[in-house]
Amino acid sequence: MRIVRYELEGRAGLGCVEPGDSGDFVRALRERTSPGEVAARLDEVRLLAPCEPRTIVCVGSNYPCQVAEKGRPWPEQPALFLKAPNAVVGPGEPVWHPADVDRLEYEGELAVVIGAVARDLTPENAMSHVLGLTCANDVTAHDWRADGQWTRAKSADTFCPLGPWIETDVAAGGRALVTRLGPRTVQSSDTDQMIFSVPRVLAHITRWITLRPGDVVLTGSPAGVGPMVPGDEVTVEIEGVGALTNPVSADRPRS
Amino acid sequence: MRIVRYELEGRAGLGCVEPGDSGDFVRALRERTSPGEVAARLDEVRLLAPCEPRTIVCVGSNYPCQVAEKGRPWPEQPALFLKAPNAVVGPGEPVWHPADVDRLEYEGELAVVIGAVARDLTPENAMSHVLGLTCANDVTAHDWRADGQWTRAKSADTFCPLGPWIETDVAAGGRALVTRLGPRTVQSSDTDQMIFSVPRVLAHITRWITLRPGDVVLTGSPAGVGPMVPGDEVTVEIEGVGALTNPVSADRPRS
Repeated sequence: MRIVRYELEGRAGLGCVEPGDSGDFVRALRERTSPGEVAARLDEVRLLAPCEPRTIVCVGSNYPCQVAEKGRPWPEQPALFLKAPNAVVGPGEPVWHPADVDRLEYEGELAVVIGAVARDLTPENAMSHVLGLTCANDVTAHDWRADGQWTRAKSADTFCPLGPWIETDVAAGGRALVTRLGPRTVQSSDTDQMIFSVPRVLAHITRWITLRPGDVVLTGSPAGVGPMVPGDEVTVEIEGVGALTNPVSADRPRS
Repeated sequence: MRIVRYELEGRAGLGCVEPGDSGDFVRALRERTSPGEVAARLDEVRLLAPCEPRTIVCVGSNYPCQVAEKGRPWPEQPALFLKAPNAVVGPGEPVWHPADVDRLEYEGELAVVIGAVARDLTPENAMSHVLGLTCANDVTAHDWRADGQWTRAKSADTFCPLGPWIETDVAAGGRALVTRLGPRTVQSSDTDQMIFSVPRVLAHITRWITLRPGDVVLTGSPAGVGPMVPGDEVTVEIEGVGALTNPVSADRPRS
């Protein structure tokens, strides 16, 4: 099932995407599980970020190609950092390039959406606490990493695009992950390349941090991270999950 | 006004604390502003963390005595880091001392609770976006600071006690701030000592990070940060605001 949050006629709804004879449509979800009536055609609604996480935990240095490219030491455990919820935006929403940032970077990533309270998970039971997968862009103000703690660098408004939906029926491993800057492919890898697999990452985080339904884990970005500027359009596409596209803007959105 | 979140007979409520002939009592708040009927005596309810922040931004190195004590460079701008919402607990709730932490530290701090959407504030208009003040303990696993990013160090479950209430009628400056470990005073300063005042901190953060009602800013801890162990009890008391006391436990709570 593909779960979406959407806006239609000024109201937010939760739905699932289904194929139809005249294109995909959105069926409203009742009580978060049982499908209700058809809300609209998919192209008639505005998709929102598919969940509203309170806690967003991210893993750095989780692809060998990226570790090698950056000349970083091989990680002994998942390197964790946070993004704050104000950073979340949905598909199509602009990513803000602040005027005081020299180098704003895209980082295409697989995002895991939690489905049940997750505390002290094991690699064996971790996936049963996952609702599904979506695409993320771990937008980073490269120059602000010099702050030491990456608060501005990772959590400025709009720095966490998520979407387009939560795909509940696919496994996290073995999925092609591609990032495109306009038409050009700039990152290309496979989620099987992760140094720490999704189950191992979830077990590690939840030793100390309890995750709740709707919380999100970003699982790291492969080699090829690079700059983007206002006017660019960035797409993160994950095989079997979907494609998340966001334009880059010099303006800070009001939302 | 002193705003509390409380639990009574298994249900959570929002109220204000008022003095009475037979001790303080809690009056239920309706629509978050207008006082309703008396809910209970203050000592009959269980106080919860007084707000449920999504974004928690903290300032490091914001007291000269602490900068000198640690031998840190004088900050050119507020040094920001995040705590994640899973870390929030209320007054009286245990702070978890994980078995794999060598040195767990208290850091008594003034916390500012946001009252209106705060974006691009100026030092002049910042305080009009504040709902009120509360006490915070910026609990830190000192050894995990070596991770680089302070995710585990600052955001493990229970690492952000807040409370006991939100005091809406006092100014942020000129308040005595005292931390006690059991009966012993271990930190003692005044909020006027901050290197970056609350209005300047809020203006700095909101240049990039939009804060929403209920979000929290922790404003830094004075000299005297030190270790605590299971069995200890830590109190952060701020003049005119209140006193926040939490025991330290070797057990990870379920909540």
